[in-house]
Amino acid sequence: MPEISKRGTEMPASPIRKLVPLSDAAKERGIKVYHLNIGQPDIPTPKAAIEAIRQVDRKTLEYSPSNGFSSYREKLVNYYSRFQISISADDIIITTGGSEAVLFAFMACLNPGDEIIVPEPAYANYMAFAISAGAIIRPVITKIENSFALPPAEEFEALINIRTKGILICNPNNPTGYLYSRQEMNRIRDLVKKHNLYLFSDEVYREFIYTGAPYISALHLDGIDSNTVLIDSVSKRYSECGVRIGMLITRNRELKDTVTKFCQARLSPPLLGQIAAEASIDTPQEYMQEVYDEYLARRNYLIPALNSIPGVFTPMPVGAFYTVARLPVDDSDKFCSWCLTDFEYEGQTIFLAPASGFYTSPELGRNEVRIAWVLRIEDLKEAVTVLQKALEAYRKK
Amino acid sequence: MPEISKRGTEMPASPIRKLVPLSDAAKERGIKVYHLNIGQPDIPTPKAAIEAIRQVDRKTLEYSPSNGFSSYREKLVNYYSRFQISISADDIIITTGGSEAVLFAFMACLNPGDEIIVPEPAYANYMAFAISAGAIIRPVITKIENSFALPPAEEFEALINIRTKGILICNPNNPTGYLYSRQEMNRIRDLVKKHNLYLFSDEVYREFIYTGAPYISALHLDGIDSNTVLIDSVSKRYSECGVRIGMLITRNRELKDTVTKFCQARLSPPLLGQIAAEASIDTPQEYMQEVYDEYLARRNYLIPALNSIPGVFTPMPVGAFYTVARLPVDDSDKFCSWCLTDFEYEGQTIFLAPASGFYTSPELGRNEVRIAWVLRIEDLKEAVTVLQKALEAYRKK
Repeated sequence: MPEISKRGTEMPASPIRKLVPLSDAAKERGIKVYHLNIGQPDIPTPKAAIEAIRQVDRKTLEYSPSNGFSSYREKLVNYYSRFQISISADDIIITTGGSEAVLFAFMACLNPGDEIIVPEPAYANYMAFAISAGAIIRPVITKIENSFALPPAEEFEALINIRTKGILICNPNNPTGYLYSRQEMNRIRDLVKKHNLYLFSDEVYREFIYTGAPYISALHLDGIDSNTVLIDSVSKRYSECGVRIGMLITRNRELKDTVTKFCQARLSPPLLGQIAAEASIDTPQEYMQEVYDEYLARRNYLIPALNSIPGVFTPMPVGAFYTVARLPVDDSDKFCSWCLTDFEYEGQTIFLAPASGFYTSPELGRNEVRIAWVLRIEDLKEAVTVLQKALEAYRKK
Repeated sequence: MPEISKRGTEMPASPIRKLVPLSDAAKERGIKVYHLNIGQPDIPTPKAAIEAIRQVDRKTLEYSPSNGFSSYREKLVNYYSRFQISISADDIIITTGGSEAVLFAFMACLNPGDEIIVPEPAYANYMAFAISAGAIIRPVITKIENSFALPPAEEFEALINIRTKGILICNPNNPTGYLYSRQEMNRIRDLVKKHNLYLFSDEVYREFIYTGAPYISALHLDGIDSNTVLIDSVSKRYSECGVRIGMLITRNRELKDTVTKFCQARLSPPLLGQIAAEASIDTPQEYMQEVYDEYLARRNYLIPALNSIPGVFTPMPVGAFYTVARLPVDDSDKFCSWCLTDFEYEGQTIFLAPASGFYTSPELGRNEVRIAWVLRIEDLKEAVTVLQKALEAYRKK
């Protein structure tokens, strides 16, 4: 049997994924499992998107342009202008989900052995795309005690060396819900400028900022146009995870041309997904407002409820629909697994994401979990009760 | 400005792509351009696929499983059994087009610096995926005089060294339309076995074999179950290039598990595309027969017509819907470009694919082009006339 590649063996198996069979087994035993583990919104997709799909009137489902339909990219220019992001349709490349945007950004910018600095905890799949590109993630650690605020510039400087090629941020943040302030974004801008780095900025949660705090996009920062790569996706804002439509946006002409070559190699992004995504742009403000209000209400319920459980602490997230909570447990991998295999309360249990998957170092996040508020408040209430009972039972074990 | 990655600068810009702006400019001048350059079938997609899309009745367009819907994979087991390919649903991984299947196969099997042997002329994008994975393509050259038959084992043996990890074939072949015989497939099997190589076999054109010649799949070959990776796609068989649904199939358990990790990182293949592709499996045999008859009639018209043009030679392709033709020109890149910029016959011209894009060596294929029969016979007739006139005018230049 021929050997598997080194990067294949290095690809991390997510700790969340490992728990899925346990969750399935719990369901087979008749236990109701509250899924707080994933970023799959339960919110309905805009009707206009479903309707556009239902009205597809084509004889042949053919290739679309490698960089995406220009009609869609033109409309996106207007979408971004609502956030004071000023770009042209040529700056936008439509990708197969935000995932492909990250992969192509890494492929086009990073050589094997190159390093990027990433504040952790961080979205687990960045690691997988870095491994695919042969790049190395060097973490700076954000702390739950500081609400996961950006560390001072010195912590970045300490990691920067000849192989450092970029900084990657997710803002608003998955998994923490943290939103970078103007000062923090300026700190990143200064680092990027000083060391001539790429800035990869994943901003797929911009619609979900729950305070008056301003959204500072990487594309708002002055003087780093050639350095900045925005990663975007329709998955979260329109609850369209399945259509696999994302964007890679840069004002760097040479980079655009390079990413385009990767796009041409894979021929085209999904045709039907683009039809749904394009139709979603004109989604009435009421839909966005309803979704926003719903997530806000869930957050406002969930965070105090979690903090009222003895020994649990979580900061108040400003954006996205996740929070990282510290639990009074020895090892959240074990605890999350135990909830699915050995625990039930009135026929119910919970599926949480162990935070170990969001840190490079195996030492970190051992007593943290990520909780996604992708259930209705009634269900969140049940889930919080189940969590409290689980923690009590786990302590007595 | 930070530097572009080495692989980014190495990514080939396809000679076909370079001509697209010239073709667009010709159209703007009011010239009718016959597109013989691409593998975008003009054939209608099965009605069942369009209908399934038009009846999508989901509130949320959510993630599908990373390896694809199990209902779809189950149906595919039956599809493959029609070709005497015996696999289980677990052996099938649904990918975002055949493109992603090739990329993931390379990512999971090949280390940077590893080599694969590919009979050329070959589908141009294999090179792009090899560069993405840091792998190196070592060509064995098939010749138009031999109808592009597989070279003897010695030519493979001469290239095999410690870095050789696999052989990649496309069967029936794009761009040549060649179909590997039982003897040729056994030759490949013996090489794969002897040197413990991977066999990547792209078989997306299996529906289109125009003679009684048997289709020998890589999965029909004995004793190399752990070595074989089948690449597949619905793009060509159902004219569904835009849905971006492909398959990676292997009986190698370890490889399946590794590819699955790459699949999980990009979350899921397109939801809507899978709905269309799944519905297409039950396409009535009449549809497949009609499409087959149409392509067969086009081939039977086109090949003799091309060979009747003075100085033109093309072998009779057994499968797919392409042929590689030798033209009486100095440089087919120049000729194809000239057809779009400087030539017209009664307000018409032709867009052919220069064969230089299908060879690694810049010396090869200089007087060859690929011609795709993706136009109706009436249009093919016009196109052949235009080609003949163009060759006459080019000679007199």
